[in-house]
Amino acid sequence: MRRSIVNDPEDLVPEALEGLVLSHPLLLELNQEHRYVTRRTRAQDKVGLVSGGGSGHEPLHAGFVGTGMLDVAVAGAVFASPTALQVLEATKAADAGRGVVQIVKNYTGDVLNFRIAGEISGDDAIDTEIVLVDDDLATDTEDGTGPGRRGTAATVIVEKLCGAAAEAGASLSEVAAIGRRAASRARTMSLALSAGTHPGDSEPQFTLADDEIELGVGIHGERGRGRVPFTSADGLTDLLLDPLREELSLQRGEEVLAIVNGLGGTYPLELNLVARALHHRLADRGIAIERSLVGSYVTSLDMHGVSITLMPLDDEARSLWDAPVRTPALTW
Amino acid sequence: MRRSIVNDPEDLVPEALEGLVLSHPLLLELNQEHRYVTRRTRAQDKVGLVSGGGSGHEPLHAGFVGTGMLDVAVAGAVFASPTALQVLEATKAADAGRGVVQIVKNYTGDVLNFRIAGEISGDDAIDTEIVLVDDDLATDTEDGTGPGRRGTAATVIVEKLCGAAAEAGASLSEVAAIGRRAASRARTMSLALSAGTHPGDSEPQFTLADDEIELGVGIHGERGRGRVPFTSADGLTDLLLDPLREELSLQRGEEVLAIVNGLGGTYPLELNLVARALHHRLADRGIAIERSLVGSYVTSLDMHGVSITLMPLDDEARSLWDAPVRTPALTW
Repeated sequence: MRRSIVNDPEDLVPEALEGLVLSHPLLLELNQEHRYVTRRTRAQDKVGLVSGGGSGHEPLHAGFVGTGMLDVAVAGAVFASPTALQVLEATKAADAGRGVVQIVKNYTGDVLNFRIAGEISGDDAIDTEIVLVDDDLATDTEDGTGPGRRGTAATVIVEKLCGAAAEAGASLSEVAAIGRRAASRARTMSLALSAGTHPGDSEPQFTLADDEIELGVGIHGERGRGRVPFTSADGLTDLLLDPLREELSLQRGEEVLAIVNGLGGTYPLELNLVARALHHRLADRGIAIERSLVGSYVTSLDMHGVSITLMPLDDEARSLWDAPVRTPALTW
Repeated sequence: MRRSIVNDPEDLVPEALEGLVLSHPLLLELNQEHRYVTRRTRAQDKVGLVSGGGSGHEPLHAGFVGTGMLDVAVAGAVFASPTALQVLEATKAADAGRGVVQIVKNYTGDVLNFRIAGEISGDDAIDTEIVLVDDDLATDTEDGTGPGRRGTAATVIVEKLCGAAAEAGASLSEVAAIGRRAASRARTMSLALSAGTHPGDSEPQFTLADDEIELGVGIHGERGRGRVPFTSADGLTDLLLDPLREELSLQRGEEVLAIVNGLGGTYPLELNLVARALHHRLADRGIAIERSLVGSYVTSLDMHGVSITLMPLDDEARSLWDAPVRTPALTW
């Protein structure tokens, strides 16, 4: 059983947001009533960027508020969408007169509440555009029926590229187009060796036999494509990489951006083994990882697992990725 | 039971170092024979800084190699000291003609092997100074007998302050004095809700009853001062803070640098709760956290626990802390 470092579990999200903002007093400010985090120094004369969703995926989203990335992040309870009212207030806070891009992971509640907030904010003369992130290849359906692919670690890429474009003065439609292009080109596959445990619970969300893993798992503990045999770090990397390579039709000579993402309970030695295997496997096929992140960026509480996100990299995306960023979880 | 993402456990450390360096190709370079990581662009005309020790504490130490921090980090096996030969080669690699400061956590094997390497490197006309980090208050003894306090999360402070001083052109003795002063003023207390599990093992290093925690635990799974009742995030924070406040004799009006450090299996929501409690408790006594880090910097595999490090902050330390740094795990 896993215990949590927590006071009243009902207070977990507001207390954790307070702790984050107290630890970054020059960078962040908290609106506790509507549970959103803004930059302490609001940006002027640029397109605003707001994102958010359920908690339990930290550092996503509030860890990505700052120069070159988000203006505002709004937080629901653990694994629950923020309300439309919260999103509305967060969207207003993100507006600096040139409109707001809402970056939304593809989950029914999030999509609904961001859409409602976008429509209502129009009454306040705020133009909004939604960028939907739906990178999780495990939830792809050939005929496009159903709720579509889930949004997972590619959110970091979309937030970074949109953030750089907005900071550089791009218009609302330009920032949205950059985000949509990134979302359309980035794909992710995930696996878990064990599930996360809700704060206050003592049992994990699901259990696996000692000789199997869950392939294609979601970041809320959703079951994946199925259970497959447990294997080595190299073998696990292949399980994630092979479907991504096929889906993205990666060709010899191509360059990619890669995120090797820990799901919460995965330690750096393990992530570095996956990063190593990924570099070798792609190099063997003449594909270069030109930029990468290796760490725990989009998590599922303490789930022990890893995801790989790949996106083909062109000059525009590379230049936006390389632009300066200063947030609690990403700085260069 | 916990399984690991690993190939042959014997290859874990060299493979993980390779993965780290492949992910930071512009920043880092690997000497696989002697298992040390250097900056890719070696610094010229400055005091060299080398650190290292057993693996399993990532991102320490290789994650702190880069501009403004370490020149070289040398890695032993999991929880085992690097050999004197490794440390000797790493010390040579760190030398740019102005001598080398060796930052060593206080463990018998590390101290012995760094000392031997320092003596032998004198034959190559390399001047060395050892800075010993021994911040773990749980291992203090009133009469100073025994092996002394263990070195834990204050290592990050010592590496950062020494790194900034070296980058600014300080001499060998000046850099060593800055490191020793920081080490003498920083203290850490740790606790664990559950132990880490060695890669390849299936059982954790120790087990705890559901209603107890280990207070004063070490970063190699060493037992602490004792087992005390499990309590809330605020209560756990008090267990760490109270002995630190007393030891450091913190007074109203004082300013401190704080590290809220996850021990490997602790997620950001939990760390942010501890950071929040720490801010409030110190503010209640008129003590301000002027600078802080909240994250997993000095870990013990996947141990679920947290440590708090405090150091009184003066102008010199603040200015060295604020100086630019660019490493995989710390950048500003």
